[in-house]
Amino acid sequence: MDTTTLRDEPQSEHDADERDERDDAPAESARRRRTRARLLDAAFEVFAEQGVRAASVETIVERAGFTRGAFYSNFSSKEELFFALMEREKEMRLEQLDTGVAQFLRPLVGEEGAELGDEDVVRTVTRILELQSDDPRWWLVQAEFRLLALRDHTIAADYLRYQDEFFADLTQTVVAALTSARRRFTIAPEEAVRVIAELCANGEARAVLSGDERTFPERLSESVPAILLALTERV
Amino acid sequence: MDTTTLRDEPQSEHDADERDERDDAPAESARRRRTRARLLDAAFEVFAEQGVRAASVETIVERAGFTRGAFYSNFSSKEELFFALMEREKEMRLEQLDTGVAQFLRPLVGEEGAELGDEDVVRTVTRILELQSDDPRWWLVQAEFRLLALRDHTIAADYLRYQDEFFADLTQTVVAALTSARRRFTIAPEEAVRVIAELCANGEARAVLSGDERTFPERLSESVPAILLALTERV
Repeated sequence: MDTTTLRDEPQSEHDADERDERDDAPAESARRRRTRARLLDAAFEVFAEQGVRAASVETIVERAGFTRGAFYSNFSSKEELFFALMEREKEMRLEQLDTGVAQFLRPLVGEEGAELGDEDVVRTVTRILELQSDDPRWWLVQAEFRLLALRDHTIAADYLRYQDEFFADLTQTVVAALTSARRRFTIAPEEAVRVIAELCANGEARAVLSGDERTFPERLSESVPAILLALTERV
Repeated sequence: MDTTTLRDEPQSEHDADERDERDDAPAESARRRRTRARLLDAAFEVFAEQGVRAASVETIVERAGFTRGAFYSNFSSKEELFFALMEREKEMRLEQLDTGVAQFLRPLVGEEGAELGDEDVVRTVTRILELQSDDPRWWLVQAEFRLLALRDHTIAADYLRYQDEFFADLTQTVVAALTSARRRFTIAPEEAVRVIAELCANGEARAVLSGDERTFPERLSESVPAILLALTERV
């Protein structure tokens, strides 16, 4: 990185955009969101390429086209950015799930809910999976995060809290969807949801390891609906 | 490490032991097994402390009290040792499982097999889990191995083959045990076994992250029997 160009703002290609928005609080906040989003995108790429431990703040800001100043006006440390990245992924996945439920399950069961046949469950789950983002680099970054948390006690508690919040939110959505299809889990719901989520994560890791080039739903459209049916019963 | 003492054999404290066994082929092979075992023990410790990538062959042989020569007469590379360590763990876990089945399930169902009540299933699974080794460092080293395989295509294929063999063997043992208790899986057996094994692995990783000091069976004696019952039915 050329340290003679250190500034607190994005570099030249984005300056026009910035000037338009000066002295305008909502736009300022929109610009800030874009800056954060670009730093997160860059961090994701660099973490996937080099590993979280090896990735430096310099490399990340360089990739994003920003300066260290821009980084530190948004994140106090690489760890804070690491959690912001997990948070963004969590929200994106939950939104994709909400969209899938609204788009593919709701029309079948209506507002009141209705019983679904096993074939409809399989078809609906597969369609919902098709909406989930399918970037193999995410599983690599997840494995990095987990190892980092296992090795570093100062990160472990936050990592665990993030995981617990994610699974609590995910369980709420899945249980609501099952209820509307007149089904319920036969084991502790959060345990069941964790098991299914891990099945997805491990399936994806296997795909990375084996160079399997099918898409996420192609790989999981047998196993995920099968285990969902096996771990639920009709109400 | 003191490079002036480089030799192909274990250092002084073990020389007496070696001399006793010279010119004796079975003993030679026993000594070789001990050397390999000590190198594997040392590698496990160093991998857990420093990570697989950071761990050097020098650090491992120093920890074991051997020389580089002893290392390379047993393993061609750190990667070969890495797989030997996984293989050893796999065999140990499968043996512990066989022992548990023989000790706790066989007396209940006899040679012919017999139906077991759910409470007996829970009690037997918990006892079998109690025999499984319970070293939290193993989950750290596993996470290291997985990440290494995800990052390195030259390791990925061997890692996947190891995993597939492990789960094939594990599935065979679990299905035989279930059959003797007149139960069978309601989803693909290997899928079910992977899911249950991952539940154990993730439970252990959570325990490391949260500093949970209960033992392996204390933590898993609710969730593992519950999911085993949920994923099986009486024949």
